[in-house]
Amino acid sequence: MPKRKIVVVITARPSYSRVKTVLSAIQNHSDLELQLVVAASALLDRYGSAVNYIEKDGFTIAAKVFNVLEGENLTAAAKTTGIGILELSTVFDNLKPDIVVTVADRFETMATAIAASYMNIPLAHIQGGEVTGNIDEKVRHAITKLADYHFVASENAKERVIKLGEDPEMVFNTGCPSIDLADEVLLSKTLHFDPYEKYGGVGAKPNLSEGYLVVMQHPVTTEYQDSRKHIEATLEAIHKLNKPTLWFWPNVDAGADGTSTGIRAFREQHQLPNVHFFKNMEGKDFLQLLQHSDCLIGNSSVGIRECAFLGVPVVNIGSRQNRRDRGGNSIDVDYCQDRIEEAILDSVERGKSISSSIYGDGNAGTQIAELLNELPLQFHKTITY
Amino acid sequence: MPKRKIVVVITARPSYSRVKTVLSAIQNHSDLELQLVVAASALLDRYGSAVNYIEKDGFTIAAKVFNVLEGENLTAAAKTTGIGILELSTVFDNLKPDIVVTVADRFETMATAIAASYMNIPLAHIQGGEVTGNIDEKVRHAITKLADYHFVASENAKERVIKLGEDPEMVFNTGCPSIDLADEVLLSKTLHFDPYEKYGGVGAKPNLSEGYLVVMQHPVTTEYQDSRKHIEATLEAIHKLNKPTLWFWPNVDAGADGTSTGIRAFREQHQLPNVHFFKNMEGKDFLQLLQHSDCLIGNSSVGIRECAFLGVPVVNIGSRQNRRDRGGNSIDVDYCQDRIEEAILDSVERGKSISSSIYGDGNAGTQIAELLNELPLQFHKTITY
Amino acid sequence: MPKRKIVVVITARPSYSRVKTVLSAIQNHSDLELQLVVAASALLDRYGSAVNYIEKDGFTIAAKVFNVLEGENLTAAAKTTGIGILELSTVFDNLKPDIVVTVADRFETMATAIAASYMNIPLAHIQGGEVTGNIDEKVRHAITKLADYHFVASENAKERVIKLGEDPEMVFNTGCPSIDLADEVLLSKTLHFDPYEKYGGVGAKPNLSEGYLVVMQHPVTTEYQDSRKHIEATLEAIHKLNKPTLWFWPNVDAGADGTSTGIRAFREQHQLPNVHFFKNMEGKDFLQLLQHSDCLIGNSSVGIRECAFLGVPVVNIGSRQNRRDRGGNSIDVDYCQDRIEEAILDSVERGKSISSSIYGDGNAGTQIAELLNELPLQFHKTITY
Amino acid sequence: MPKRKIVVVITARPSYSRVKTVLSAIQNHSDLELQLVVAASALLDRYGSAVNYIEKDGFTIAAKVFNVLEGENLTAAAKTTGIGILELSTVFDNLKPDIVVTVADRFETMATAIAASYMNIPLAHIQGGEVTGNIDEKVRHAITKLADYHFVASENAKERVIKLGEDPEMVFNTGCPSIDLADEVLLSKTLHFDPYEKYGGVGAKPNLSEGYLVVMQHPVTTEYQDSRKHIEATLEAIHKLNKPTLWFWPNVDAGADGTSTGIRAFREQHQLPNVHFFKNMEGKDFLQLLQHSDCLIGNSSVGIRECAFLGVPVVNIGSRQNRRDRGGNSIDVDYCQDRIEEAILDSVERGKSISSSIYGDGNAGTQIAELLNELPLQFHKTITY
Repeated sequence: MPKRKIVVVITARPSYSRVKTVLSAIQNHSDLELQLVVAASALLDRYGSAVNYIEKDGFTIAAKVFNVLEGENLTAAAKTTGIGILELSTVFDNLKPDIVVTVADRFETMATAIAASYMNIPLAHIQGGEVTGNIDEKVRHAITKLADYHFVASENAKERVIKLGEDPEMVFNTGCPSIDLADEVLLSKTLHFDPYEKYGGVGAKPNLSEGYLVVMQHPVTTEYQDSRKHIEATLEAIHKLNKPTLWFWPNVDAGADGTSTGIRAFREQHQLPNVHFFKNMEGKDFLQLLQHSDCLIGNSSVGIRECAFLGVPVVNIGSRQNRRDRGGNSIDVDYCQDRIEEAILDSVERGKSISSSIYGDGNAGTQIAELLNELPLQFHKTITY
Repeated sequence: MPKRKIVVVITARPSYSRVKTVLSAIQNHSDLELQLVVAASALLDRYGSAVNYIEKDGFTIAAKVFNVLEGENLTAAAKTTGIGILELSTVFDNLKPDIVVTVADRFETMATAIAASYMNIPLAHIQGGEVTGNIDEKVRHAITKLADYHFVASENAKERVIKLGEDPEMVFNTGCPSIDLADEVLLSKTLHFDPYEKYGGVGAKPNLSEGYLVVMQHPVTTEYQDSRKHIEATLEAIHKLNKPTLWFWPNVDAGADGTSTGIRAFREQHQLPNVHFFKNMEGKDFLQLLQHSDCLIGNSSVGIRECAFLGVPVVNIGSRQNRRDRGGNSIDVDYCQDRIEEAILDSVERGKSISSSIYGDGNAGTQIAELLNELPLQFHKTITY
Repeated sequence: MPKRKIVVVITARPSYSRVKTVLSAIQNHSDLELQLVVAASALLDRYGSAVNYIEKDGFTIAAKVFNVLEGENLTAAAKTTGIGILELSTVFDNLKPDIVVTVADRFETMATAIAASYMNIPLAHIQGGEVTGNIDEKVRHAITKLADYHFVASENAKERVIKLGEDPEMVFNTGCPSIDLADEVLLSKTLHFDPYEKYGGVGAKPNLSEGYLVVMQHPVTTEYQDSRKHIEATLEAIHKLNKPTLWFWPNVDAGADGTSTGIRAFREQHQLPNVHFFKNMEGKDFLQLLQHSDCLIGNSSVGIRECAFLGVPVVNIGSRQNRRDRGGNSIDVDYCQDRIEEAILDSVERGKSISSSIYGDGNAGTQIAELLNELPLQFHKTITY
Repeated sequence: MPKRKIVVVITARPSYSRVKTVLSAIQNHSDLELQLVVAASALLDRYGSAVNYIEKDGFTIAAKVFNVLEGENLTAAAKTTGIGILELSTVFDNLKPDIVVTVADRFETMATAIAASYMNIPLAHIQGGEVTGNIDEKVRHAITKLADYHFVASENAKERVIKLGEDPEMVFNTGCPSIDLADEVLLSKTLHFDPYEKYGGVGAKPNLSEGYLVVMQHPVTTEYQDSRKHIEATLEAIHKLNKPTLWFWPNVDAGADGTSTGIRAFREQHQLPNVHFFKNMEGKDFLQLLQHSDCLIGNSSVGIRECAFLGVPVVNIGSRQNRRDRGGNSIDVDYCQDRIEEAILDSVERGKSISSSIYGDGNAGTQIAELLNELPLQFHKTITY
């Protein structure tokens, strides 16, 4: 019997980190053939060139698709998705996969979902059913309605996908594959690399031996005109606290320039003698960095997910992770300098929580690969009510 | 106060017929400005050039967008949608509407939904919440998850949209606007035009004075490889019955060529002395034709919807209207010549049913226009559970 | 040393026939690797699905690209080219060819030329330098200005390309590869196949044993609004002469529908008891059919080129082949029924001419393959004056 | 008689500056209607948002088209052109212009040329016939072969376009419209604005009263992998000379990031106490800045063209302006720090040259508008030999 051909489309650095163990598990599965497609910001320098890590990690790339339209606005996001559909259709038509896998809820992942579902290729969706209260949510639930198989990350997500009218037999709580990676660093006792040396970046090089903060804050698409103001609250708080801090640039989204511009302007006008800026970092190194940090600040889902598993304290800012399930490790605050400062201080003092398995217990990758091998190939469905 | 600018995107002839009263009501509303965009198969000869009727009906077209990619396969459908997003984004960026309206569930309507929702333009969806069990259903419910306002056509549809997690305050059972048109012909006593003279077409010109059949059968996307076989069952049945029959060509879909090719080949090989073929017909004329017919055969939603209101007997073939709410006027049959023949004979004998208002009572257009004027402009939502 | 990778992009059935010996010669060359890309109308049923012949002939296809936008107008031609560039860029980026080959002057071949030249991939152009006085000419000479190597089909063409400011060392008169195929049928004594049986088609099946006419007439892009009128002159002439005739449908171009519609309408209204219609035919069979015909009628370049080599009489209608070099086998007429009739009768009476090598002597394929292997890889040039 | 509708497509800041007087002349012409389309980098912040100046200058924009695909490579340039064709076709289809005007030779101007010429809209090309020896030259001459009217900037250019086989009656040496603007500042005695205050920018604010240098260096597409090394030679030279310097960021091209990254990295590692960086400047202000500068350094065509007219000394670096006609104001050097330094010192010492009218004498705009009004509308041409 020929191997099932599984296309996975990676469109951004964080998505790659998230599903890396799924890719490995598919590649290592004797009955599956991985057809990896790399597209959108995953190919671009500005967003950390995930493609370089993918190649370094030994994955073969079946096709690359440049489809990010430039523009400091939401029109560009829509057009990026349109170009994505146009080109991914051709890629799928040439690769002839048995199943296509799409990841999470970035705007451009819709391109994968539409190309596959319109072409009657069974579509698997990783990480549906979550709630965040922003544009990602429109995208995420719309993809659920296009997908044939659902690999969700928590029991709440599972329930929600079923409520959306999906066949319960096609909804699987595999946990989040990002937890698989976190599992590998859970027992790490010290930082095994020098982040400045390995990843370059710009700014000060604070001493990390007495603890440090990590910041990762992305623009929120529905609030993109405020993204500069939002990042400034965080910048002011970090500036004031003046603790050793490692700051990661935001990924691509309409308004990326609000956030990025805010950071650049702040740096021109202020001394930040304790802050270093990184463009990006390999997933496992990043998790180790978190594991040994005092606190993660920002609005990344890493705080809600991996950090819950690792027990790392998190100050979660603003609406981006609204209504996602929380472990006991995080404090939610608004875009307010004082509240951010206070929450950071509290978090650092409180220290590590116990590990939560709310988003899985570390074997999502192999579970998903096995399901991709076993599930009946189907692309025809109807709502359950 | 400036008028609210309302973009409506029309992508196919049947959609135009369906929402014509909405367009008129928007155009006649003192606080609204209609920005009509005509795209996809609505611009093409092969599918009846809806654009000509639109212009003849006196609507001003703000922009035309050719985006149908040619190809006898599903890849073309996906790519048509991708091009649609790319170009409609530009159109919306230039027109700057306050609300965008998308209609029903054809694959390419997704382009309108994505462009608008990604650009943070409030999106209204007409005819969500219905169930049919085919690819249209994936599209329809995915659009529901992208849309901000829902103008549905029946109580069941309303309940379903709410179950999908939409805010009940944004879901309105306005009835289907196509019923508004049907309402205008309900009392018509005779056919007011000569269809051969007014619409040309090819084939025989049977005498219609003693009753006639109407056939309209579209390919079903999830079964497109069988579309030729499917149409042949109907062709054989009609050929055998040899009653005066008016047959309408299918609209564009992957597989249109299976259906069309089947019809063409059948015509080459058989005499059809009682069958005339039309490309298309203005909505109101078509409704009048149905009103005075003995029976509609095929899988058009007109059978389920307008014919229920008119009480015209319908033989509904195959899966395309699966699970849509039925009035008492229709018989469901499979793609089977014998069953089709039998059902036609039964229907003709039974004659007209009483009018059903299951899909509305004739004022959907004005209701929708008024809602478009009054609803708060919003594009931010979250699932209700 | 790794083999040079040579991408050839085939976008239409006639282009495939034209360069088939080039493809074989590249494939058989020990230092070259053929990467065949099939796109545009070469993939479509309506235009004869060249792709099926390509596969049957044993070529491996590296990528397929559907990019024909549907529409009965010139806008669609422009958009088809735009989509072609967008997608071929991705294909080239993934295939990483050393040289890209583009063929002739159809509007969409510009997509190949732009993608390659903008990506700094050396571009070879087959059949530049000819003169026809229509939109093809704009395209053809513009491609010459983008191309790095020129494989032209006649001495006049060579001179013209050099006058256009190209480096004479990069301009090669290889002859037209279509002549390579003609060379193989030159000595054929009888028709080796039954065209009705092998190629189906529709219409009458005239007896071919006493001689027959062949018709192939394409719409002319700059005159597309008249294409229906133009085809009607030919239809009337053929109808009147009532000789055994084999008629080939036109290929894709803006206005294809004018020509096609004209043919369809004529068939509905007239008996054509001596005319059979084919969609398409394999190149070698078509040449054999011409070799044994009394006369070719229409505006195909086959008349000017292969028929000159074969000595088959040709009635060349209208402006499409204006100013192309002629052998002694053809008569030029306008779109005028009487003149067409008269010219056909004269041609049939005159019979075969002697073979002309104005377009080559039958080894263009191997010459081109050898040049592709030997030429220095370069994409940087400047005008010579 | 209705006014002739003239579409002009502006795709970049420098093109806008170049043809501004043409736009004004069309707008002010009683028989012409200007339909201004703004696209590509002219809409983007990163490249100086020409659109803002266009609006500030009082021009009405008929349509905006975002079509720049992001990517640090040549694939993105090709794809940008493809998207441009796709979308401009729709724009032209909706605007229905009588003539389309395309400017110069940037890669994406090809999109305008293809859309118009394929749609049988007469195409006018401003600034054909020049020679530079890079990819722009392929583009420029290919556009000449697509265009119907040629408005060239010098006698040499006129001769070259005619040699390319264009009808001499359609080739007009109007001079370059950029000279029209230069003409307006020729007599300016002092700088009428404070560039720091009016245009912001970053870096030092050197005193300009004792003279200053201006730098504008773009990446060269055929050498884009070296663009970082190339810019570093200039950076080192300017750093060493340490004179008051105003530096302009490069515009969009494949490799923009090589140049930009080079500048950013140099700034991180070196003090530049006499250098200020601007993103962009209104055309007239920029010309005034040049008029009062000691020397322009880089590879902008402004040095060859406007500075020749103004008599401002220029150090022209590298191959970008190769073979363009020179006035007596410039010195050509390679990418070599020492030669650049030396040439700057020589230029400053030598001082102003006399004004050269090699690129026109200041009335190109009105000449072009008048020709657009008078020329016969035609889109059909054939090569003259």
